[in-house]
Amino acid sequence: MLKPLGDRVVVKPVTAEEKTEAGIVLPDTAKEKPQEGEVIAVGPGRMLDNGNRVAPEVKVGDRVIFAKYSGTEVKIGGQEYLILRESDILAIRQ
Amino acid sequence: MLKPLGDRVVVKPVTAEEKTEAGIVLPDTAKEKPQEGEVIAVGPGRMLDNGNRVAPEVKVGDRVIFAKYSGTEVKIGGQEYLILRESDILAIRQ
Amino acid sequence: MLKPLGDRVVVKPVTAEEKTEAGIVLPDTAKEKPQEGEVIAVGPGRMLDNGNRVAPEVKVGDRVIFAKYSGTEVKIGGQEYLILRESDILAIRQ
Amino acid sequence: MLKPLGDRVVVKPVTAEEKTEAGIVLPDTAKEKPQEGEVIAVGPGRMLDNGNRVAPEVKVGDRVIFAKYSGTEVKIGGQEYLILRESDILAIRQ
Amino acid sequence: MLKPLGDRVVVKPVTAEEKTEAGIVLPDTAKEKPQEGEVIAVGPGRMLDNGNRVAPEVKVGDRVIFAKYSGTEVKIGGQEYLILRESDILAIRQ
Amino acid sequence: MLKPLGDRVVVKPVTAEEKTEAGIVLPDTAKEKPQEGEVIAVGPGRMLDNGNRVAPEVKVGDRVIFAKYSGTEVKIGGQEYLILRESDILAIRQ
Amino acid sequence: MLKPLGDRVVVKPVTAEEKTEAGIVLPDTAKEKPQEGEVIAVGPGRMLDNGNRVAPEVKVGDRVIFAKYSGTEVKIGGQEYLILRESDILAIRQ
Repeated sequence: MLKPLGDRVVVKPVTAEEKTEAGIVLPDTAKEKPQEGEVIAVGPGRMLDNGNRVAPEVKVGDRVIFAKYSGTEVKIGGQEYLILRESDILAIRQ
Repeated sequence: MLKPLGDRVVVKPVTAEEKTEAGIVLPDTAKEKPQEGEVIAVGPGRMLDNGNRVAPEVKVGDRVIFAKYSGTEVKIGGQEYLILRESDILAIRQ
Repeated sequence: MLKPLGDRVVVKPVTAEEKTEAGIVLPDTAKEKPQEGEVIAVGPGRMLDNGNRVAPEVKVGDRVIFAKYSGTEVKIGGQEYLILRESDILAIRQ
Repeated sequence: MLKPLGDRVVVKPVTAEEKTEAGIVLPDTAKEKPQEGEVIAVGPGRMLDNGNRVAPEVKVGDRVIFAKYSGTEVKIGGQEYLILRESDILAIRQ
Repeated sequence: MLKPLGDRVVVKPVTAEEKTEAGIVLPDTAKEKPQEGEVIAVGPGRMLDNGNRVAPEVKVGDRVIFAKYSGTEVKIGGQEYLILRESDILAIRQ
Repeated sequence: MLKPLGDRVVVKPVTAEEKTEAGIVLPDTAKEKPQEGEVIAVGPGRMLDNGNRVAPEVKVGDRVIFAKYSGTEVKIGGQEYLILRESDILAIRQ
Repeated sequence: MLKPLGDRVVVKPVTAEEKTEAGIVLPDTAKEKPQEGEVIAVGPGRMLDNGNRVAPEVKVGDRVIFAKYSGTEVKIGGQEYLILRESDILAIRQ
């Protein structure tokens, strides 16, 4: 599996159909179409100037919304993942 | 519902007609047309370099004015929301 | 009324005629034509990296000069206001 | 008169003829033609991240040299002034 | 051999075929095609503003994923290496 | 004479012929042609975020090498000077 | 000779032929062709925000690899040198 570094988070993107059932539809018109996905792995968090790390606000299993063009795509065993920075994540679906 | 991360704020935009009743009309001529909306959810606040968080100045229910092209649109159960950074919010309507 | 956030300031712009009586004429030739106005409301001030706020140097009622293209226009009850950052304000007219 | 904010300085530009008598001629060829002027008013100084202000190095009456395209022009009672940042000032003529 | 400075890391890129056996296939469609490789040497780590170094999260022998266009190519004794910054590395394959 | 502010340094550029005698010839081919000159005046030094000044590494009389397009030209009593930032100076000729 | 300031380093570039004997061949295809050279002089090191200097990681005589287009060329007594910032140096050849 993937162990993200620093403030990075591995997310399994939720496809469009699943999204409608989950209730979030991202308006096509929106200049930036945020996406939704499930958190698979979380890094140790961002390093501050004073050498301390910021504990991540998300955890494995969270359903999150993030900006469409953020992160880097990686395919492992046929499944596509996105490696994001935590600052790309806008909110957690509760 | 949505739980915003860091310094983000979820706002329900107020449509043009509601705005006239509320008294704020945003001049079309203005290079940047600020918008108005109601705060639905507020994140924990911005993280400073020293590891402390800045308590947000806005709270749920506040009527706020923000810059037109800021934030990311999200639709939940047919209702459109904007996920902004607190620094996109210019003022609170009192 | 408007309660500005952080280092923002609400200013009521002074129109050209009023300016001549007040003595400040902004040369058209200037690459950037500063403007003049009256401070209507002042935010709590800029947040520093150490978590302290910088007390604003301007106060309600001050007559200030600011750079022409700064800030965001807002109309309330027919009156136009500008929401500026304090750093857009160049000087106070005494 | 004008009371500059933060690290700003109000300067009365010296016209070309006066400059020759004062000895400084700015070569037209220079990509950036610095200008000369007299300091009329000085702000409280730049605010550092730690909340302290840096005492300005210039004072009223100093004859200073600054970069040609810096600052904002303001006309008061027919006299033209430049509102600069202290960092636009290169040197003091002694 | 190469001793990287600061936060740099020397990686031996894994060619496409090896990648399929290792299970990671990088989708061509992806705007940015991350790459995979083995860590050969690690620098002392990034220097913070306070003068302390951040201990690197990767070690020699780790299998890592990094953004396609990051780093600088170097050939030593016929073998090609990439000198990356640690922040170019997205995750460790476990 | 000129008293430079902050981290600025006043240099009297050395013309091409003098340079050959001094041994430094700046290759025309070089994308950036560094120049050489003599230090005439040195400012108090750069201000750090903590309010302390960094003592300049150059002193009056030093022969220095700096990047060609850096600084601002000033002519005083017919003599041309360059007002540089200390960070534009690459090295001292010993 | 040259005494570099701050975090600068003077390097004598190694020509292509010497490089083959030393074993490092820089692939022409590489977007950025790093170069190799010998360290001739090292500055006191980078100044941090807290006023301390970072001791350089390279020393006179080290064989180093650096990015092709970094630094400024200087010719002294017919010999060409490069004045780099230490951060332009990728690794030390051991």
